[in-house]
Amino acid sequence: MPEFFNVLAPDAAFGALKPMLKSSVGMEVVPVSEALGRVTAADIHSPEDLPAFPRSSMDGYSVRSRDTFGASEGLPAYLDLAGEVPMGESANVRISVGQAAKAYTGGMLAEGADAVVMVERTQALDETAIEVLRAVAPGENVVQVGEDVGKGDVILPKSSVIRPQDIGGLLALGITHIDVCRKPRVGIISTGDELVPPGTQVGAGQIRDINTYTIAALIEQVGGKPIPVALAPDDFDAQRNAAVEGLAACDALVFSAGSSVSSRDLTADVINSLGEPGVIVHGISIKPGKPTVIGLVNGKPVFGLPGNPVSAMIVFHLIVRPAIYQMSGHDSAPNSASCEATITRDISSVAGREDYVPVRIKHDSGQVQAIPVFGKSNLIYMLVRSDGIVKVPLDRSGLYAGDMVDVRLF
Amino acid sequence: MPEFFNVLAPDAAFGALKPMLKSSVGMEVVPVSEALGRVTAADIHSPEDLPAFPRSSMDGYSVRSRDTFGASEGLPAYLDLAGEVPMGESANVRISVGQAAKAYTGGMLAEGADAVVMVERTQALDETAIEVLRAVAPGENVVQVGEDVGKGDVILPKSSVIRPQDIGGLLALGITHIDVCRKPRVGIISTGDELVPPGTQVGAGQIRDINTYTIAALIEQVGGKPIPVALAPDDFDAQRNAAVEGLAACDALVFSAGSSVSSRDLTADVINSLGEPGVIVHGISIKPGKPTVIGLVNGKPVFGLPGNPVSAMIVFHLIVRPAIYQMSGHDSAPNSASCEATITRDISSVAGREDYVPVRIKHDSGQVQAIPVFGKSNLIYMLVRSDGIVKVPLDRSGLYAGDMVDVRLF
Repeated sequence: MPEFFNVLAPDAAFGALKPMLKSSVGMEVVPVSEALGRVTAADIHSPEDLPAFPRSSMDGYSVRSRDTFGASEGLPAYLDLAGEVPMGESANVRISVGQAAKAYTGGMLAEGADAVVMVERTQALDETAIEVLRAVAPGENVVQVGEDVGKGDVILPKSSVIRPQDIGGLLALGITHIDVCRKPRVGIISTGDELVPPGTQVGAGQIRDINTYTIAALIEQVGGKPIPVALAPDDFDAQRNAAVEGLAACDALVFSAGSSVSSRDLTADVINSLGEPGVIVHGISIKPGKPTVIGLVNGKPVFGLPGNPVSAMIVFHLIVRPAIYQMSGHDSAPNSASCEATITRDISSVAGREDYVPVRIKHDSGQVQAIPVFGKSNLIYMLVRSDGIVKVPLDRSGLYAGDMVDVRLF
Repeated sequence: MPEFFNVLAPDAAFGALKPMLKSSVGMEVVPVSEALGRVTAADIHSPEDLPAFPRSSMDGYSVRSRDTFGASEGLPAYLDLAGEVPMGESANVRISVGQAAKAYTGGMLAEGADAVVMVERTQALDETAIEVLRAVAPGENVVQVGEDVGKGDVILPKSSVIRPQDIGGLLALGITHIDVCRKPRVGIISTGDELVPPGTQVGAGQIRDINTYTIAALIEQVGGKPIPVALAPDDFDAQRNAAVEGLAACDALVFSAGSSVSSRDLTADVINSLGEPGVIVHGISIKPGKPTVIGLVNGKPVFGLPGNPVSAMIVFHLIVRPAIYQMSGHDSAPNSASCEATITRDISSVAGREDYVPVRIKHDSGQVQAIPVFGKSNLIYMLVRSDGIVKVPLDRSGLYAGDMVDVRLF
C-alpha cells in the first residue's frame, strides 16, 4: 500500500493498533510476597472477615459499656477485675455485670464485653478492682469483626497493580498466592550490516549494537519481559527467519531498523511476509521518529522502530509502551513521570507534525528550566545528557522561550 | 533519656540521623545490560571517541566539499564515482579532486572526503559519474570523530541512576561492566506475641504477620534488599538476639513494633542495648506515627516503626525511604510520585504536628479530587483503598474542603 495513505498522527497510529491488541497474554500464579508490581488477572474476593474476632484498639479494659454510663472523674464506676486476655490468645475470660478484664491493643475482647476503656481513663484500686473515670459507648475502642474488610468483598479488582499495602492486605486474609497477568514476552531484533555485539572488538566502520539493550531496558521498565532474538544483517531472509523465530517465542516483536533508508523498507517487507494483516501503519507524523512501522501478525504486534536512538526512544514511549501496558492487563497506561518547566529557547516546528525535543532540567533560583539539548538524532549521548522530552503539539508551529511546557521525564 | 526531649518534627528526625548515615554501603561490579536502576559508584569516563570514525548521517555521496562550491540545479558539479564504502566496512576508497564515493547512513566516510551530499541532491549520469545539484559545507551531513562524546569525558558522574539510554551510551563505548553501589541489605524484625506467619492456620486472638512483607516490598521499591530476619515475641532477649543476628547480616534494621504500648518501649530498650549511640530519636510529632524510634548502632541505622500499617507506611516514606536512598549512593531521595488535587472534606489537625490523611483519588468532570479515607490506623484496608496521602503541615490547624493539596501517591 502507498506510504502516504498510512502516515498517521501518533495518537491515531496507536489507535489503529489498540483494538487489535489482546488485553492480556495469559495468567500465572505467583506468591503474594513476590507480587509487587504485578497486575491482577481477576477480581480477588475476601475469603473471610477481617478482623476475624473483635479486637481492642487500645491498651485498657474490656467492659460492658452500660456499666460505665454516667461515669466521670467525680463519680467513677467501680468494676471488678475478672482477669485478662493475653495477646495472641483466645478470650478465655467472660465478664458479667460490673466486671472488666485487662485488654491489650490488638488483643481479643473478653467475652461479654462490647467496649474498651483506655487505661488512661481508669485508676487501679487494687489487684482486683478498677475505677472507670469516663463512660464509653458501645463499640468504643473496638475493631469489630469484618470492620476492615468483610467476607466476600472485592478486595482488589481485576487489573490492579500490586503495591506494598496490597501485599499486606492479601496476606492479612491468608491469601498467599494470586492469579496475575503473565508479563508479555517482547522479542528484539536489531538489524544492520554495520552492527557488532557490544562486547566484541569493533573493526573500522563497525558500530556496537546498543539498541537491543536500550530497548530491552525500556521493555523491562514498563513491565514486559525482553527477549533478545537476533542481531540480523540487512537481508530479507535473515530478518524473516529471525522474526519467525521471535514470533514463535514471544507475544510481540520489536525491530530496531538499520540506519539506512532501505533498511526500514526491508522491515515493512518482512512484516508483510509474516502473516495477516501485516503492516497497518507506515510512518508517523512526528519528528524525530517518522520512519516507524507498525504491524500485526497473527494477533501479535510487530514494531519497526527507527534505528537512531532518539527516534527509537520517542516512538517507544508513544507507541510500544502503551501496547505493552495493555497486553500486561492494565486498564490504561500509567501516567509517565513529568514536570512543568520553562523552556529556555525558541523551538521551531511545523504545524501538522508533533515535534519532540530532548531537554535537560535545571533548577535555577526556584525556577525549573527545560534546556533543549540539540544534536543529531543518531547520537545516543543526546539522550544520556537529557532528562526528558518536550512535545511541540501538532497544531503549533513552535514554542517560544519562556513558555511553560510539560516535560515527560525519562 | 526522657522521651519529651526527643520528640522531633519529621524533618528534624531524619536530619538527626542523616549526617550519621553512610553515603554508600560499598560497591560491586555488574554487567551494564543488567544495570537498569543501579547507582554509579564513581564517575565513569569515556575510554574512546564516539564515533571512532567519521560517519555519514545521510544516504548519498562522500565528497570533498570544495568540489561542490557553487553547484546548483542550473549549474551542477560533475563528479566521478571512485567506488562505495559499504556499511560496516572500513573506508577502502580514497577520493581525490573531482571524485565522489557512495555513502550510507551510519557508514564510514571515504578517505579524503570531508562532507556528504544527500542522494536527493544528486543525479546519476551513468555508472561512473554524478551531478551534484547543491553545494555542501565542510562537515555537512557528517558525524565527526568524538562528536557524540570525546575520549576522557565524564559520561556519567558518580551517583547517576542508570536509565535505558545510559545502558546504550555505555555499551556504545564498549563498556560492558560498571561499578555500582551495592544495594543496602535491610533486615526486618516483626514483633508481637499475637503474630503468626501468614501461611499458617490462625488461632483465636492471633493475627497474621503482614508487616514483614509490606515493609519488604517498600524496601524493594526504593532499591534496598529486604532480608526478613525474624518474627519475634514481645520479649527482650528474643528481640535482642534477632537484632544481633540482623545487624551482623545487614546494613540497616527495621523493627515493626507490636501493637501494644509496652512493645515500642521494648524496641527502644533493645536498640539501646546493642551499642552506641543507641536511640537518637524517640517519638516524632506526626499523626499517625508518633511512636517511632530511630537509633544508630555501630554506624547502622535501626528503625522502630509503629506496628499499625498506616503509621508504618507513613513513617517509612518520611524516614526510612530517604535513609535507604542515601545508603544506596543517591545524592538525594528522588521526588515521590505526586499529583495536585482538591480535598473534598475538612480535615482538622493540631498546629505543631504534621498530620497525614490517606486519600482516594477520583477524577470527576476534569477535576482531580482527593477523598479522605477514614478509619482506624490499624486497618490495612485503609491503605489498600487509598491512592496516596495528604499532609497537613506543622503550622496549620487543618485543611478546608476545596483546598488544593499535593497528594503523595503510593
